[in-house]
Amino acid sequence: MRGVIMVGPGEVTVGDREDPTIVDPTDAVIRLAATCICGSDLWPYRGVEPVDHTAMGHEYVGVVEEVGSEVKTVAPGDFVVGSFVISCGECPICREGYPSKCVNFEFVSATIGTQAEKARIPYADGTLVKTPGRPDPDLIPSLLAASDVLGTGWFAADAARVGPGKTVAVVGDGAVGLMGVLAAERMGAERIIVMSRHPERQRLAREYGATDVVEERGDEGVAKIMELTGGLGAHSVIEAVGTQESFRQAIGACRPGGHIGFVGVAHDGVTLPMDQVFFAEVHLFGGPAPVRRYLPDLIDLIWKREIDPGKVFDLALPLERAAEGYAAMDERRATKVMLTL
Amino acid sequence: MRGVIMVGPGEVTVGDREDPTIVDPTDAVIRLAATCICGSDLWPYRGVEPVDHTAMGHEYVGVVEEVGSEVKTVAPGDFVVGSFVISCGECPICREGYPSKCVNFEFVSATIGTQAEKARIPYADGTLVKTPGRPDPDLIPSLLAASDVLGTGWFAADAARVGPGKTVAVVGDGAVGLMGVLAAERMGAERIIVMSRHPERQRLAREYGATDVVEERGDEGVAKIMELTGGLGAHSVIEAVGTQESFRQAIGACRPGGHIGFVGVAHDGVTLPMDQVFFAEVHLFGGPAPVRRYLPDLIDLIWKREIDPGKVFDLALPLERAAEGYAAMDERRATKVMLTL
Repeated sequence: MRGVIMVGPGEVTVGDREDPTIVDPTDAVIRLAATCICGSDLWPYRGVEPVDHTAMGHEYVGVVEEVGSEVKTVAPGDFVVGSFVISCGECPICREGYPSKCVNFEFVSATIGTQAEKARIPYADGTLVKTPGRPDPDLIPSLLAASDVLGTGWFAADAARVGPGKTVAVVGDGAVGLMGVLAAERMGAERIIVMSRHPERQRLAREYGATDVVEERGDEGVAKIMELTGGLGAHSVIEAVGTQESFRQAIGACRPGGHIGFVGVAHDGVTLPMDQVFFAEVHLFGGPAPVRRYLPDLIDLIWKREIDPGKVFDLALPLERAAEGYAAMDERRATKVMLTL
Repeated sequence: MRGVIMVGPGEVTVGDREDPTIVDPTDAVIRLAATCICGSDLWPYRGVEPVDHTAMGHEYVGVVEEVGSEVKTVAPGDFVVGSFVISCGECPICREGYPSKCVNFEFVSATIGTQAEKARIPYADGTLVKTPGRPDPDLIPSLLAASDVLGTGWFAADAARVGPGKTVAVVGDGAVGLMGVLAAERMGAERIIVMSRHPERQRLAREYGATDVVEERGDEGVAKIMELTGGLGAHSVIEAVGTQESFRQAIGACRPGGHIGFVGVAHDGVTLPMDQVFFAEVHLFGGPAPVRRYLPDLIDLIWKREIDPGKVFDLALPLERAAEGYAAMDERRATKVMLTL
C-alpha cells in the first residue's frame, strides 16, 4: 500500500509500505477514507523531534475491511472513526474515562501511521466507534476532525470546566484552539475570548462562537483579558499551544479557583513555575485527550449536523501530494490539511 | 503588648509592640487565647526568606475585644477562629469560594503577626467565625489548628477529590500532611497511604486514619505506592511539602485522571517539567487554602468532638518562650508548637 514516510526533517515522501494484516484477535484492518496532518507532525518536520524514515499520521476515518475473532462492536463494511490513541476499553483506567492513558495504550503515531491507504488498529472495540451508516461525503471532514483535533478541543473545554454563564479564554488559534472554541460554544459558555492575530482564523473562531478576539500577546494579552473580565480573569482557559509562553498566558488569564484545560503538547524543557501556580490558585488538567470517551457523542452531533468541525480543514490534497500539505502547514498557509484517498 | 519578633534568621525574641486599635469600620481587635508556630515560619528562620525585625504569626483563636461600626457577625466577648488570610467575604472571588484569593486579601503573616497578645483583624465578618460559646480549654488546640493546618489539610484533601472508595497518598508527614490524613479519613477514603519515616508522626498518622506507611522516598517511594495500588497509582494525592522532590513524588504516585491537591508552599525555583505533567494526565490544584470557607464546618466537627486535630501540637509553651518553640521545630524535635497566653 501507499503511505507517507518522513525520511528526515523537512523531507516527506509517499512510498510503498507493507499491507497491514490481522495480528491479534482484537485487531481490525481498516481502509482509510481520509486522514490528515497534525500540528504535532510539524515537530519532527522542523527537526524538534527525531525522525528517520517514519510512517506518519494518527488521525483517521475509514471502512473496516477485516476483524480479528474477538472483535465485537465493529464488522467489515462499517464506517468507523478512531482515536489517535489505541485503548483496550476494559482496564480500570479506560473504565474511569481515561482511555488515552489505558494500561495497554499505544500512540497511533508511534506504531501505526495512518497517512496511508490502510491501517491495522489494535483493540478495535476499545479504539474505534462506528457511525450510524455510510456518511455523506460532506461529513467526512467533520468525522475526521473528531479523531483528534475536535476530541482534543472538546477535552480541553471539559478539563477547563466550561459551562453556562462562564467566560472562556482560548490560548492558541490553531486547529485545536478553534475546536476548543466550538466546544465551549456547545457547552454553553457565555463569553469566548480567543487569542489570535491571524485574520482567517479569527473569522473561523467567530463563526464557531468566539465573542471577543485579543490580538495582544504575552503580558499585554493577559492584561487585555483581565480588562475584559473585570480584573478577575476567565473562569475557564483552554491552552492549545504547549510552550512556556502559552502556559504563562493561560495561568495569567485564569481567575482564582478557575480551570485551565491544557492540550498543547508540552515539549522537553517547558516548565511550570510552581510558586506562580501556587499563588494563582487555579486548577490545571490536561494531557493526551481521551478522545474515545467523547467519540459517540461527537459522532452523534456531527451526524445530526449540529456542529461542523470539518471547516477547520482549509486545504485538501490527495495522499500522494502529502509533501505539499506539510509545507503549507509549516509555512502557516494552511491551518489543517486533509489527505484524501 | 508583647509579641514575637524575628530579628533576623534564627533570632527570635519576644518584645513590646504597639497595641492594635480599630482603624477601619470593618475591623475587630481580638485578645488571643492561643497562637502557634507554622512550618512556613521556618523559612525566614532558616534564612530562605528575608526577615528583619518582623512581627511573626498567622494562626489564632481568641476573644473579640472591640469591633468597628460595620462589623455584623462577631461582637465583643465572642470567641472566634480566624483564617490565616484576611478576606472581605463579599467580592466575586470570595463568593465563588476562594477567600484566600479575595480581591482585598492580606496575608496575616505579612501585615499583622498573631504571635502576640492581641491582633487587629481587618474584614472581621469575612475572616472570623465565632464558636457556639466559650470553648472548654481542651478544645482550644483543635480550634487553633482549624485556623491554618487543619483548614489547609482539609483543602488539600478536597482539592485531591478524596471520597468514598478512593485510595489517597499523602506526601509529607508534617502538621499539614497529618491533617490531610484526618481529612481524608473523614471524607470516607478507603485507603490512606502516608509517606513518613518518623515513628511519632507515623503513629499519629495511623491514629488519624492512615492504613499504610511508606518509608521509602523518591523513586523508591513512588514504586512502593504503585505496588500498593496494583500498578495504577493513588486516586488522590495530597502534596504537603512544596519541594521539587515532593511534587515529583506526587505526580509519580497519582493514577491517570487522578487528582493532586497541593498545599506545600512552593518556593522560587521549584518547577515542574510540563512534558511529565502532560503525559501523567493528572489534575493539579492547590495554593493558599480557602480556610474561611471550611471554618464553620470544621468548628462544628471540633465542637461535637468528632475530630481531634489538636493532637498535632506536640509542644506547648508560653508566648514568652517562643524562641524555644522555633528551635524545637527547626530541629524537628516538635511537629507543631502551640504558644499559650
